[in-house]
Amino acid sequence: MPADRIDAVASLAHRRGFAFPSGEVYGGQPVAWDYGPLGVELKEHVRRQWWRTVVQHRDDVVGLDAAVIQPRPVFTASGLLDTYTQTRVRCRACDLTQPLDRIVEAFTVRREQPAAALAELACPSCGSRGSFTDPQRVNGLLEVSPDRPGPPDRYYLRPEAAPGTFVNFANVMIAARKKPPFGIAQVGRVFRNVVGPGEFLLRSHERERMELEYFVEPGTDDDWLEYWAQRRWEWYVDLGLAPQQLRRTEMPLAGLPQHAKRIVEIEFQLGGAYQEFVVLEGITNRADYDLTAHAKHSGADLSYFDQDRGERWVPYAIEPAADLTATVFALLLAAYDEDEAPNTKGGVDKRTVLRLDPRIAPVKVAVLPLSRNADLSPKARDLGAALRRRWMVEFDDSQAIGRRYRRQDEIGTPYCVTVDFGTLTDDAVTVRDRDTMAQQRVSLDQVERYLLERLPTG
Amino acid sequence: MPADRIDAVASLAHRRGFAFPSGEVYGGQPVAWDYGPLGVELKEHVRRQWWRTVVQHRDDVVGLDAAVIQPRPVFTASGLLDTYTQTRVRCRACDLTQPLDRIVEAFTVRREQPAAALAELACPSCGSRGSFTDPQRVNGLLEVSPDRPGPPDRYYLRPEAAPGTFVNFANVMIAARKKPPFGIAQVGRVFRNVVGPGEFLLRSHERERMELEYFVEPGTDDDWLEYWAQRRWEWYVDLGLAPQQLRRTEMPLAGLPQHAKRIVEIEFQLGGAYQEFVVLEGITNRADYDLTAHAKHSGADLSYFDQDRGERWVPYAIEPAADLTATVFALLLAAYDEDEAPNTKGGVDKRTVLRLDPRIAPVKVAVLPLSRNADLSPKARDLGAALRRRWMVEFDDSQAIGRRYRRQDEIGTPYCVTVDFGTLTDDAVTVRDRDTMAQQRVSLDQVERYLLERLPTG
Repeated sequence: MPADRIDAVASLAHRRGFAFPSGEVYGGQPVAWDYGPLGVELKEHVRRQWWRTVVQHRDDVVGLDAAVIQPRPVFTASGLLDTYTQTRVRCRACDLTQPLDRIVEAFTVRREQPAAALAELACPSCGSRGSFTDPQRVNGLLEVSPDRPGPPDRYYLRPEAAPGTFVNFANVMIAARKKPPFGIAQVGRVFRNVVGPGEFLLRSHERERMELEYFVEPGTDDDWLEYWAQRRWEWYVDLGLAPQQLRRTEMPLAGLPQHAKRIVEIEFQLGGAYQEFVVLEGITNRADYDLTAHAKHSGADLSYFDQDRGERWVPYAIEPAADLTATVFALLLAAYDEDEAPNTKGGVDKRTVLRLDPRIAPVKVAVLPLSRNADLSPKARDLGAALRRRWMVEFDDSQAIGRRYRRQDEIGTPYCVTVDFGTLTDDAVTVRDRDTMAQQRVSLDQVERYLLERLPTG
Repeated sequence: MPADRIDAVASLAHRRGFAFPSGEVYGGQPVAWDYGPLGVELKEHVRRQWWRTVVQHRDDVVGLDAAVIQPRPVFTASGLLDTYTQTRVRCRACDLTQPLDRIVEAFTVRREQPAAALAELACPSCGSRGSFTDPQRVNGLLEVSPDRPGPPDRYYLRPEAAPGTFVNFANVMIAARKKPPFGIAQVGRVFRNVVGPGEFLLRSHERERMELEYFVEPGTDDDWLEYWAQRRWEWYVDLGLAPQQLRRTEMPLAGLPQHAKRIVEIEFQLGGAYQEFVVLEGITNRADYDLTAHAKHSGADLSYFDQDRGERWVPYAIEPAADLTATVFALLLAAYDEDEAPNTKGGVDKRTVLRLDPRIAPVKVAVLPLSRNADLSPKARDLGAALRRRWMVEFDDSQAIGRRYRRQDEIGTPYCVTVDFGTLTDDAVTVRDRDTMAQQRVSLDQVERYLLERLPTG
């Protein structure tokens, strides 16, 4: 996938309101992204699909939403305070700060051999060589200092949802009356002290994650990791990513962080001028690392009493942790397509179309009166109001119908319903399919049923 | 509503998994709340009801989700950096820090006259008099320091969603092709440097807000404020708060913050030992304060060109800003009820029932095999799996049926479906209504339709 395609998607996203660089009016480097009207809906639908698959449709997983700000002991015990670091260098020539591993990796890929010394590396921004400062190790946690009653303590924004899940393990297990194997799911923003250029949607200091901690009996953990790696792969394919765009990789044992026994990653292939692969999800076997660590630091009992075996053990956690931000990015890229559509002059126009699955398309139906007319508009408005009870609907009577179709194609709207002059006599409308561009005449009182058979509600 | 009722709800919430004190295993003061399996669903449903009413069902409002971390200029322009402060005193005797206004207000209410001096005030924790330190003004914004490329700047966690909306005003208006009157809605976490005891769900440094900025033509702003105050009041009543539990108040002109021309508040009456009213929502006429300030600080044009009048003007913003955290709290309190239910011995048992609107009830259906039995269980499990495609369903075969009904009543599940031995011959089940406790025999293949007519999906 060429870089200019990513640019095309980023441009569409800005123009049509999927995402804007955060604080754009104040200029400067884009350090984060704000989701616009369409981006909010897309992200929300992806989130909800995840929740449906991982929580609602299963009897063995429940949800949780822990606080974002957690006190220091939570991060001490989970090891994040010591290990969640990044090594960075600053270029003295252009003042750009970069993670060292990214520069090293780029060099290795280009030269097909690792760099022998820092001086060999070129600044990715200005090209200077030998301009880097000594590497500095920086903590990836963001600290905040709320005034709290009691002795002063330090607080941090969570870099992942996991610590909040582990400290609630016993509470949830008891309240939800579950026993292993069972899971606790969380979705939400996480905050990281990252540094890097603001590629479209990626590399922001805030991201959103969809994390499951699935607690299992030790010894069954290898099977469960495989089970979840499979389920999660299927989820991405089901939602619109082609298997050939995805890659499953296994992190080498030697490179595993201390909390992990094994890590499998699902990546999306970007290609072009950008980094080749984006990690959508890591499925980690965390073993009993976290529950044991929190039990030790807090003094709480975080084990499970197995009545069948008459013994107490600490569950292992299998963690399928998806990156919602990267998933939205991948789904947008995968859906982007250009083809041709017939125009009113008998020729063909280039057409941009987002082939988003109807379940995640931001707008489900567009209602378009053929022209701005005193007879058509009220009928179209009434229809729009009726459909809006069930779906996100756009009403548009602004320009030529062809241009309005183009716009709906570009934002991925699965169905356009046109109210035309025929409607005034036959009480029927034309429903147009985004992908096939096929048009079908449907009686006005059957439109809702027609769409209900083809579109998800809620 | 007596304080012990709040305690009863807080206890139920903990026991059944609506909310746990954050970081409970590490002990200490509860500084925030984690939403458990039921709380996540309840909160999510309330949020979705708001989004449906304010965004989806309207043609004139679109959504947004701006970054939580915003750079300093955003808060300088919006005035929050100067004005978003709290005056606090610390008790030298017991070391408790408190907002001064809360102590002053408590004194005034009790003595029916204001305090003449700080020395008159008693510490609400230890009762000492004359023990307070000099009042200190503290900024209510939480600062974070992500490493960013470019010159160092200061960043803050948003205390409300509004600034992110205003800086995106022009981007959204153009991308969504809207013109005033139109609105931009945001839901999400906000962070505040608050201090105070951790009353159940309230007074945490993180909360969730549901905010609308509705941009209107100057001169129409008074009418629009009234319009929104009415709509929002109706929303709370529709969702289950009785009008007599609500109060509409008007903030006195003299006490208005600089950004506000007028503020109307909708409050929920608590009573008892706790503070009497909880603010659910403030509807503020912010006039052109924010757009003008951001235009001035950024140099961007944040006005609207009115083609009909051939002139440019800065829209006024009417801001109905709801507190999701307080709303969840109020809905739980209002739904809590105790009545009596017949037991199997011919007598009556005390019953705790959460009379939550089915739209927001966390679990929609419970599937209960009459007993753990090799014939009943598979039938019940199949039914549970089928219904789970549409709703959050609990399957429970653990104890006597009466105790399982009690548990579902206590968490507000609208319908219990019991699979009994009759089911094996007549292929029908018993559906029990939470509120009336009426039972109805429904054919197995009609259960889904029966529930579809009574329960929201999605």
